[in-house]
Amino acid sequence: MRRLVMAAVAVALLAGSVQANTVSPRDKVRAWRQAHEQQIYADFTKLLAMPNVASKLADVDANAAYIQGLLEARGFTTRLLRAAPGTPGSIFAELKVPGAKRTVLFYAHYDGQPINQQGWLNPPFQPTLRTAPPATAPVDPATAATKLDPDWRIYARGAGDDKASIQVLISAFDALKAQGIKPSVNIKLLYEGEEEAGSPHFGAIIGQNRDLLRTDLLIMGDGPMHQSGKQQINGGNRGIIGFSATVYGPAKPLHDGHYGSWAPSPTVMLADLVMSLRDEQGHILIPGIYDDVTPISAADRAALDALPPVEGDLKQALALGRNIGPARLAEGYLAPTLNVRAIHAGDEGPSAANAIATDGTLSVDIRMAPGEDPKLVQRITEDYLATKGWTIVRDAPDAAIRMAHPKVLRLVWDPGSSAATKTPLDTPSAVAVAGSVGRTVGYPVIKLPLMGGSSSIDEAVNQLKAPMVGISVANYDDNQHARNENLRIGNLWDGIEVYAGLLADLDW
Amino acid sequence: MRRLVMAAVAVALLAGSVQANTVSPRDKVRAWRQAHEQQIYADFTKLLAMPNVASKLADVDANAAYIQGLLEARGFTTRLLRAAPGTPGSIFAELKVPGAKRTVLFYAHYDGQPINQQGWLNPPFQPTLRTAPPATAPVDPATAATKLDPDWRIYARGAGDDKASIQVLISAFDALKAQGIKPSVNIKLLYEGEEEAGSPHFGAIIGQNRDLLRTDLLIMGDGPMHQSGKQQINGGNRGIIGFSATVYGPAKPLHDGHYGSWAPSPTVMLADLVMSLRDEQGHILIPGIYDDVTPISAADRAALDALPPVEGDLKQALALGRNIGPARLAEGYLAPTLNVRAIHAGDEGPSAANAIATDGTLSVDIRMAPGEDPKLVQRITEDYLATKGWTIVRDAPDAAIRMAHPKVLRLVWDPGSSAATKTPLDTPSAVAVAGSVGRTVGYPVIKLPLMGGSSSIDEAVNQLKAPMVGISVANYDDNQHARNENLRIGNLWDGIEVYAGLLADLDW
Repeated sequence: MRRLVMAAVAVALLAGSVQANTVSPRDKVRAWRQAHEQQIYADFTKLLAMPNVASKLADVDANAAYIQGLLEARGFTTRLLRAAPGTPGSIFAELKVPGAKRTVLFYAHYDGQPINQQGWLNPPFQPTLRTAPPATAPVDPATAATKLDPDWRIYARGAGDDKASIQVLISAFDALKAQGIKPSVNIKLLYEGEEEAGSPHFGAIIGQNRDLLRTDLLIMGDGPMHQSGKQQINGGNRGIIGFSATVYGPAKPLHDGHYGSWAPSPTVMLADLVMSLRDEQGHILIPGIYDDVTPISAADRAALDALPPVEGDLKQALALGRNIGPARLAEGYLAPTLNVRAIHAGDEGPSAANAIATDGTLSVDIRMAPGEDPKLVQRITEDYLATKGWTIVRDAPDAAIRMAHPKVLRLVWDPGSSAATKTPLDTPSAVAVAGSVGRTVGYPVIKLPLMGGSSSIDEAVNQLKAPMVGISVANYDDNQHARNENLRIGNLWDGIEVYAGLLADLDW
Repeated sequence: MRRLVMAAVAVALLAGSVQANTVSPRDKVRAWRQAHEQQIYADFTKLLAMPNVASKLADVDANAAYIQGLLEARGFTTRLLRAAPGTPGSIFAELKVPGAKRTVLFYAHYDGQPINQQGWLNPPFQPTLRTAPPATAPVDPATAATKLDPDWRIYARGAGDDKASIQVLISAFDALKAQGIKPSVNIKLLYEGEEEAGSPHFGAIIGQNRDLLRTDLLIMGDGPMHQSGKQQINGGNRGIIGFSATVYGPAKPLHDGHYGSWAPSPTVMLADLVMSLRDEQGHILIPGIYDDVTPISAADRAALDALPPVEGDLKQALALGRNIGPARLAEGYLAPTLNVRAIHAGDEGPSAANAIATDGTLSVDIRMAPGEDPKLVQRITEDYLATKGWTIVRDAPDAAIRMAHPKVLRLVWDPGSSAATKTPLDTPSAVAVAGSVGRTVGYPVIKLPLMGGSSSIDEAVNQLKAPMVGISVANYDDNQHARNENLRIGNLWDGIEVYAGLLADLDW
């Protein structure tokens, strides 16, 4: 490890950004961070306190303005890129570094998932420091004797997904500046404002600003770290399309004793629909859906085999008596997955009645593997549903339509979609990233061929024709997309060091 | 028809209850009803305004006390029969008629289904008169020029199911008394207070009061009329058992991109469970569930064939493009039906997230046909689920239980259950009922071998060893068990005449 750290110092020296002394830039960053924990925490809290649900434009705009202010204050030039008036903007920021030969564009998103889930420990936009799970007792950060316990966590929507990526870059920049370390690359930032809404305008924003966004490498900050807690990089993301489906039974609720033997039941129609789409073990039943999937390469197979085993601990943490699909979690990322996000029909609990419901709804997403075309997957899905007897409509069907067809399905595709993107991790820029991160953390970084999640980054990768490497900051158990999203404090500190390392010596 | 009416007058004369004049008792009843519509409507409104959700004991008790008062004022002796302190009581009322040789016990229930459904046109305990559907505009009954339009409806929980049965008997009694017509039978009433909660104590109440309740015939007032709008009688009800089932996924919600290929999904587990229980066409897949079902007799087949066809109109009214199961609605009543009342897992709508839910719930009932033993059906259902890999538990499973078994199912049976009861409609007392009702309505009554719904009346039929005939009052489209339960005003008037006819001349 020592050799690598010395190499980093050497690189930094070549870039003329470090004084030739015996303290490594990473040690300087750490010292600065340790001296400024309370301030960094307070800054992050302020960022997280800003409501950022993707569907609320005014909230999203307020976040953008605030973040632009933070960046301008640090010498970045910024612009808010909107595809059209009234749509969420992506923040573009740029800092040119004299002498730098490479440009790196860091992507993150500042919007967040909806917050209406039951069971939040604190209101999602009142960020709260809590002790490590399962205790999760609130802690006043001001009472921390010397420093914040790295196992404490901050609970708020966006803590892990994805404001952490923004905070660590800003704090890393502050650390370098304070310590007199000059970045090794020209920095571009692209912070999206509607990732959690499916990025309906992100492709247009990229398309309208290709020159502005031109880069030698995309670094993608979204997504959780490896379950082992070790730092990882990844070569991309799966694609995603999603839809909501509504099935129809009788036009009004019916007594199920008098009509259950005769009237079609929306609850059962939903179940039948689900089981026609996939089986309980996760195999997708849509003909052709696996046809275009890029086979797992020997390099990827080796990378998968090298991943630390986490599945046993995961089952323990999640109280699971089994898994479905491949035994190795990350292997499943290289194939498509069809998720039934929600299924709802009929009253239950205090409103329960022995009644046949009038309709039922399903929410589905399909995570697509490299090689798959979202448009084609949409088409084969609809074609398949037609063979199962469904008449697909887009609007709520009237009585005439419902009577004219045995099985009417209102299918509405989610506004956003993305294709999978995959940069082989032996690409030179990716090798450089792995080297920099490894120097920071002191061990060989975990290389994940692909993340299981999705990202609108596909638009940037494809339109900018740049390689992409993903670096995660958030703890894997950050409850992203769910209630009680959180970021482990230690991940905030580590993220700052990783980003500072990249800014200080990334080059290839 | 004329001959029948004259026969009725002759019977009434023999009972010494009618003056020998040319006005039939039925005409007298109608005249009285027409003169008292506003009063009857006001009385019914007062009864419906009393909250009666089966789970709220204080509300149910208040209804009981009120109804007992109504009956005491009319000369009945009453008692509230409770199986145990703190449980809902059944009202027993009795009126002995000098000279009567038969005793008839009228059953109804005064409790109602839950009211938490969305979409009520008016609060369920603020009874509101409305014009005929689909307009359903509110009407002030006091503004009715001469009389209330029989196609108007009163909207309130319990309007059809089952306070209508109570109101028509009381009004029928008032009509006979006002017109000097003496009942032909000794009258017993048994009005249950927890039918909609599954009648957990009704069997005990019957068992503790067999002598008190002894009767020659049970007349069961619960359930809707034939869809043709014609008066019908029925020979019984299907049985019912129900359960709620909870399936378990990861102990906390997971990002479905990162974990969807690996973590079991509660949405899919629910769908798989449903499709293992029945198919989309209604065929039940639990082995043995059809074994004990009493085959359809030639008489029942003839009765089914004689039923007015209603299925075409029903499809129109319900906007259905098809039916499942037998083409004739009533044929399905002679076989078991498994209904999935509700299916719920995952967040949707404004709380939607790309997450794997932690659990999911199903609500199921099984309507059993004559010949089936509820306990046996429960057992074969659980045995079958075990063969499908489910480990059945009764309480919320802890992490150790969830990890020790691949598929854990929390299965909680509903507290109440009932077996099917069936009185052949050629039983002498049933023939007498059909004759009386036919004389009132002026056409041969429709004979339905069995209702599709269920009733705790099975306890009375079995323990009292009495035949039972069901007579329905409520319009078939009364939205019973659902939002906007209602009673058509014309059904209230007709029900009074039918019950008055029975009280005036029922004998065999």
